[in-house]
Amino acid sequence: MRQLSKVTCDMSMSLDGFTAGPRQSLDQPFGEGVDDRLHRWMFEQAEVHADVIEAGTEAGAFIMGRNMFAPGRGEWDLDWNGWWGEEPPYHAPVFVLTHHPRESVTMKGGTTFHFVTDGIESALARAREAAGERTVSIAGGAHTVNQYLAAGLIDELRLHIAPVILGQGERLLKDVGDLNLEPVHVAGTDLVTHVTYRVGR
Amino acid sequence: MRQLSKVTCDMSMSLDGFTAGPRQSLDQPFGEGVDDRLHRWMFEQAEVHADVIEAGTEAGAFIMGRNMFAPGRGEWDLDWNGWWGEEPPYHAPVFVLTHHPRESVTMKGGTTFHFVTDGIESALARAREAAGERTVSIAGGAHTVNQYLAAGLIDELRLHIAPVILGQGERLLKDVGDLNLEPVHVAGTDLVTHVTYRVGR
Repeated sequence: MRQLSKVTCDMSMSLDGFTAGPRQSLDQPFGEGVDDRLHRWMFEQAEVHADVIEAGTEAGAFIMGRNMFAPGRGEWDLDWNGWWGEEPPYHAPVFVLTHHPRESVTMKGGTTFHFVTDGIESALARAREAAGERTVSIAGGAHTVNQYLAAGLIDELRLHIAPVILGQGERLLKDVGDLNLEPVHVAGTDLVTHVTYRVGR
Repeated sequence: MRQLSKVTCDMSMSLDGFTAGPRQSLDQPFGEGVDDRLHRWMFEQAEVHADVIEAGTEAGAFIMGRNMFAPGRGEWDLDWNGWWGEEPPYHAPVFVLTHHPRESVTMKGGTTFHFVTDGIESALARAREAAGERTVSIAGGAHTVNQYLAAGLIDELRLHIAPVILGQGERLLKDVGDLNLEPVHVAGTDLVTHVTYRVGR
């Protein structure tokens, strides 16, 4: 039997545990008042963190929640193909969890968005199939990651902790149960602390 | 004018942001089901983390909340002199924030507990006076630390993040406002990630 793909998750998080602020919208995709505060390290120190950024995007397939793919809720606006323009940075199949069926959308550069309506385990099975021997990355947002953590389906959690207090918003690590975590790597700069956890089953 | 003492704070915290579980009591001082889960690194890897532990106890004065000093609430049980036996590990004056006046208590080894009823700024002024040129350490618990952070009175926050999810309990970094944080040091083992933040004013 073929070994199952490793499942990773890279998340930028505030020191008080949020991956986005409240009231995410088209104008403020990371929530009110957040802008790039959680991701300054990626933009202002891209060269310093090149290995970390590369590791976060090299998966063979990605999974994300509907709320990460689109600002709208409910029925699809078929003109919306994600936040990332014509050539999204995934360059691989991306499985979007949703309650609303939609045809797959093929973008430039190898990214195809598939819309999965039958739950996180089904999405993971399809992502593993697509990834082959490469990893599957749970791309976000917090609610989606929490669901996969609670189900024991993530092997490696790579937190990028920004030195920022948001006070409210989308909370990571909520309702995930008592995880078996082992920090295996730690590093950082003045804009971020990277901690990689191996997650036991 | 003499330079004010540096104010530090060492806290062990779960990855999801708690410094203790729910319902702290005489039998379970760190809350239900927590035991030493946040502090295994101190007990099982004391030699590895000797410098960190030393740095956390070398202050010239300490401040703690009533709830860290005693399991009871309300009027004092005068037989209770803290959790730490006849010779507490502080070896310095300890200022305990409380609404209930009590005479100071001198223990062995240089620890004296003083009970302060007129608020956090008064306690800090007294602790600075006692510490002289040495640092003042805010010893806990979470609510006390949060108050000092919100007031902009902590210069250096040293978090010791245990790879543990508690899910509920006493939350650090709650209602502290938008702190100006800069990570200045990071290190760790399989039982803890140490991150030191300089806190701007």
